[in-house]
Amino acid sequence: MNWLDQIKWDADGLVPVIAQEHSSGDVMMFAWMNREALARTAELGEAVYWSRSRRKLWHKGEESGHKQVVHEMRLDCDNDVVLLKITQQGHEPGIACHTGRHSCFFQRLEKGNWQAVEPVLKDPESIYK
Amino acid sequence: MNWLDQIKWDADGLVPVIAQEHSSGDVMMFAWMNREALARTAELGEAVYWSRSRRKLWHKGEESGHKQVVHEMRLDCDNDVVLLKITQQGHEPGIACHTGRHSCFFQRLEKGNWQAVEPVLKDPESIYK
Repeated sequence: MNWLDQIKWDADGLVPVIAQEHSSGDVMMFAWMNREALARTAELGEAVYWSRSRRKLWHKGEESGHKQVVHEMRLDCDNDVVLLKITQQGHEPGIACHTGRHSCFFQRLEKGNWQAVEPVLKDPESIYK
Repeated sequence: MNWLDQIKWDADGLVPVIAQEHSSGDVMMFAWMNREALARTAELGEAVYWSRSRRKLWHKGEESGHKQVVHEMRLDCDNDVVLLKITQQGHEPGIACHTGRHSCFFQRLEKGNWQAVEPVLKDPESIYK
C-alpha cells in the first residue's frame, strides 16, 4: 500500500500539516496539503502546501525565498495529521510568517487579550516584492 | 472585543489546536476545540477539546489521568489556529497518545513507508480501564 494511500484525507481531500523547526522545536506554522502537495513535498524535500484561499499548490517560499527544507515527515496515530521537521531558509533566524515574524504563533493570551509577543524580523513589504 | 470572538471559527464552529510539550518542545497531539472547549481550557488551565467523533466536550485525561496542564496559549497570524504549551500529567515521561506513546506523531516516513519509531510507554489496556 502506497504511503499516500494510508493518509485519511478529509472530505475536501486535505490533511492538516504542522511545520516545526528542526533545530529549535518551535512550531512555525500550520497549513493544509492535498495528495499532490504531499507527494511534491516528499519528492522535492521542500514544503509544498495547498492554498485553500487561492485553490492551488503553494510552494512555500516561491515568492519570499523563505523555503522550508524538510528533514523528516511524521504522521499521527489516526493517520490524519502530518508533522514536518523543517529548516526555514532565506533569513537568520528563520521567518515562516507572512508578517515577517519567526513563527505564525506570535500572539499570546495575556489577561484575556491576544498580545503580539514576537518581533517582526523583516518588513513584509521587502519580503514580497 | 472578547478574546474568544477574535478566533476565526471554521464552518463547523471549530478551531484546530496543536498541543506542544512545554519542557521538550515535542508536538504531542492535534485536536479541535469549539468556543466552549476553548473557554473551559482557559478557565481550568487544562486542555478541554471537542471530540468530533463523540460530538461532545472532551476533558483530556478524564479517563486516562493523562491531563494536560496549559502554561500558555498562542494564536496564529490568521487567528484560526491555536497552539497550547502544556505539561502532560499522569506518567513520566508524559503520554499524550491513546496508543500509550509519548506523542501521537510516532510514525516516520522512511523509504516510502510509515514506520512506528517511538516506544509504547504503557499498555493502553491499563490506561483505559
